[in-house]
Amino acid sequence: MRSTSEMIRRKRDGGELDREEIRAFLAGVVSRSVPDYQTAAMLMAIYFRGMAEEELAEFTAAMIDSGDRLDITTPTPKVDKHSTGGVGDKVSICLAPLVAACGVTVPMMSGRGLGHTGGTLDKLESIPGFRTSLSPAEFAATVRSCGAVIAGQSERIVPADKILYALRDTTATVASIPLISSSIMSKKLAEGLDALVLDIKVGSGAFMETVDRARELARSMARIGESHGTRVRAYLTRMDQPLGFEVGNANEIEEAITLLRGKGPPDLLQLVKVLGSAMLAEAGIEDGPTRLENAIQSGSGLARLERLIEAQGGDPSVVEQPDTLPRAAHSRRLRADREGYVVSIQAKEIGLAAMGLGAGRQTVDDAIDHSAGITLSAKVGDAVSYGDLLATLRFNASRNVETAAARVAAAFRIEAVAPHPWPLILDEIG
Amino acid sequence: MRSTSEMIRRKRDGGELDREEIRAFLAGVVSRSVPDYQTAAMLMAIYFRGMAEEELAEFTAAMIDSGDRLDITTPTPKVDKHSTGGVGDKVSICLAPLVAACGVTVPMMSGRGLGHTGGTLDKLESIPGFRTSLSPAEFAATVRSCGAVIAGQSERIVPADKILYALRDTTATVASIPLISSSIMSKKLAEGLDALVLDIKVGSGAFMETVDRARELARSMARIGESHGTRVRAYLTRMDQPLGFEVGNANEIEEAITLLRGKGPPDLLQLVKVLGSAMLAEAGIEDGPTRLENAIQSGSGLARLERLIEAQGGDPSVVEQPDTLPRAAHSRRLRADREGYVVSIQAKEIGLAAMGLGAGRQTVDDAIDHSAGITLSAKVGDAVSYGDLLATLRFNASRNVETAAARVAAAFRIEAVAPHPWPLILDEIG
Repeated sequence: MRSTSEMIRRKRDGGELDREEIRAFLAGVVSRSVPDYQTAAMLMAIYFRGMAEEELAEFTAAMIDSGDRLDITTPTPKVDKHSTGGVGDKVSICLAPLVAACGVTVPMMSGRGLGHTGGTLDKLESIPGFRTSLSPAEFAATVRSCGAVIAGQSERIVPADKILYALRDTTATVASIPLISSSIMSKKLAEGLDALVLDIKVGSGAFMETVDRARELARSMARIGESHGTRVRAYLTRMDQPLGFEVGNANEIEEAITLLRGKGPPDLLQLVKVLGSAMLAEAGIEDGPTRLENAIQSGSGLARLERLIEAQGGDPSVVEQPDTLPRAAHSRRLRADREGYVVSIQAKEIGLAAMGLGAGRQTVDDAIDHSAGITLSAKVGDAVSYGDLLATLRFNASRNVETAAARVAAAFRIEAVAPHPWPLILDEIG
Repeated sequence: MRSTSEMIRRKRDGGELDREEIRAFLAGVVSRSVPDYQTAAMLMAIYFRGMAEEELAEFTAAMIDSGDRLDITTPTPKVDKHSTGGVGDKVSICLAPLVAACGVTVPMMSGRGLGHTGGTLDKLESIPGFRTSLSPAEFAATVRSCGAVIAGQSERIVPADKILYALRDTTATVASIPLISSSIMSKKLAEGLDALVLDIKVGSGAFMETVDRARELARSMARIGESHGTRVRAYLTRMDQPLGFEVGNANEIEEAITLLRGKGPPDLLQLVKVLGSAMLAEAGIEDGPTRLENAIQSGSGLARLERLIEAQGGDPSVVEQPDTLPRAAHSRRLRADREGYVVSIQAKEIGLAAMGLGAGRQTVDDAIDHSAGITLSAKVGDAVSYGDLLATLRFNASRNVETAAARVAAAFRIEAVAPHPWPLILDEIG
């Protein structure tokens, strides 16, 4: 077997590493016997050279084997959804209870926000008492009692990814399709899923800015799933403007509850139905749209969210009384300075403004103000008159609201001619 | 200014770093505030993306500025020669005293051997008492008294290179032309030279295996020199068979002395004259070949070597009595097993065999047996009969002579038809 530097050389020259080499390399990464500088050089070589299909499947398998697997036996198929991250994306919080209410198990491991993107765990932690850090036993118990759970990744799931991700973040090797897809898929496959639905965001507010790159990522993840016997269905969805009206944490929980009451914003509802139907279809349930609609109308989805909150230690009364969620002390309203149509709302700028108000993190160690956020009052395609409300910023003292307000104002483009309607769902793969 | 990870990203994407960024990066490398994993990622990005001409000149300048410069005022121009490393290459030991005897100052910083290649410092240390580690004051005093010096690189000359080279060695980023050329040129330019002559070895025993790569390296170094106001003349020379007859350390010193007595092997003499004439020409002396020949015939070159040895603490009597050099206790003779012409002698294999006998290093920490080595009795083009001596291995106890002997035997190819004569000098650049 090659030495580590020989493996780096082989990858540098466009060769493939074999199963034994990949396992030795990742074992060395986890045991720290491979120094970080060799790992960094390997990551950059992978950035430039990519990985062959079989090599990537082996790499992902070795990532999974670096830690524990979840092995929860459930009476119904286990299906999860993963999104590559956006602004105002509270889909998971709607989807997990809805899909569970339709009879499919959703053992969801979710993440935190960073930069302009929000994180499902941060949003859920707006709910007083809600715990996202569960032991394997608690995770399994919640899955069994609620048919769904939304928790953070255990330290013991794919420990190799934690080391690689920290290095990628500081060595400009994040934006590599094999590294992204193996990172995501290793964690998802460790959940022992029957199927996985992916929401690959595309656009100015997304990690993947072009449809081609997003499609390449979707295909890479689908192939990894296939090689591990897990069905993957991926959707490319637009993330140019925020999803729904609320961007933040507590306000996004409230909007998710509103959706489960049948009063959700159209774009969020559409995405929940498309992704939810795909999850149900992968579990053999073909009349997904009808079932999801029934779960909303009957309140069974909302009831399931209530159960899930209670099972995870949260105060379930927020479902009936959302005003028990934390509220920011101050607000600032932004109004249209001209008449016309909203032709774009740059999601990334809105996300960064929300981060500036305390709703997000600039670095992984920053604390979150769950009460801060932004409420949009107009979305792309809406007609506005001079003085109409565009957005409300919610914040507590000591925040630089002027910078955030300027960002939000600059994020809105209002023009005389209405924009062409744009599809939210761009493509389906797998 | 960009952060380190932004600089890595820029280089990764094929962009150029500006002067301020390059200086900040290398300052961080030397102060260790840039962690090795970021440096490794940058090196790999440079490996793939290269460097623009101006960027490489700035990078080299910042490398030089990471440490001290030699600043020795001399009455005659300062010219050095650098070789990229070969087998049996004792050119520097002949050239420094010869060129100094012709009236040009040669402040030579030289290196040690590694793997199949020998090092000038190791060879000189065969001479009892010879010191290659000189203080800046000793270095300058030797230059002034002898017109030449051959010493190791001070710790304070280009400290950035030591860190980068150690990382390159373990991260498969050695074979990058901008990294090689900036490493060599930063050290040479820190000597404060008026001109530099490069001997870029090409062939199976050289670091550059193809003429195209060697030419590219030569041009890169010439451009760096030009941008720093130092003339560079480069020669591409063949390193397929060892240079001269002797491969080792003490035996190579003896061969250098033999050359200075006018009895050197033709290939070694040719190379000494070509490179020496170029050094003299760069100092404005156009009748170099004649002067060099006179310095050999008159013994002024040999006398200069004697002075240099004495000035550096060595026993100058080796010049008159080379048998005071260390001798190995054992020898093994290899003879031709067929009749024909020697068509090739793989230099790398001979170098590795010599290393196996103790004359070289497998790793930088290995000790050298100065008395060990190999003497060739036939060179490419020579006709041999069955039983003719091909090579003599010289070694002390506890060496695996069988392996070395097998390597040497396999390195010789003898065929019925004489090979085409091949030129030693392939090209001249600059």
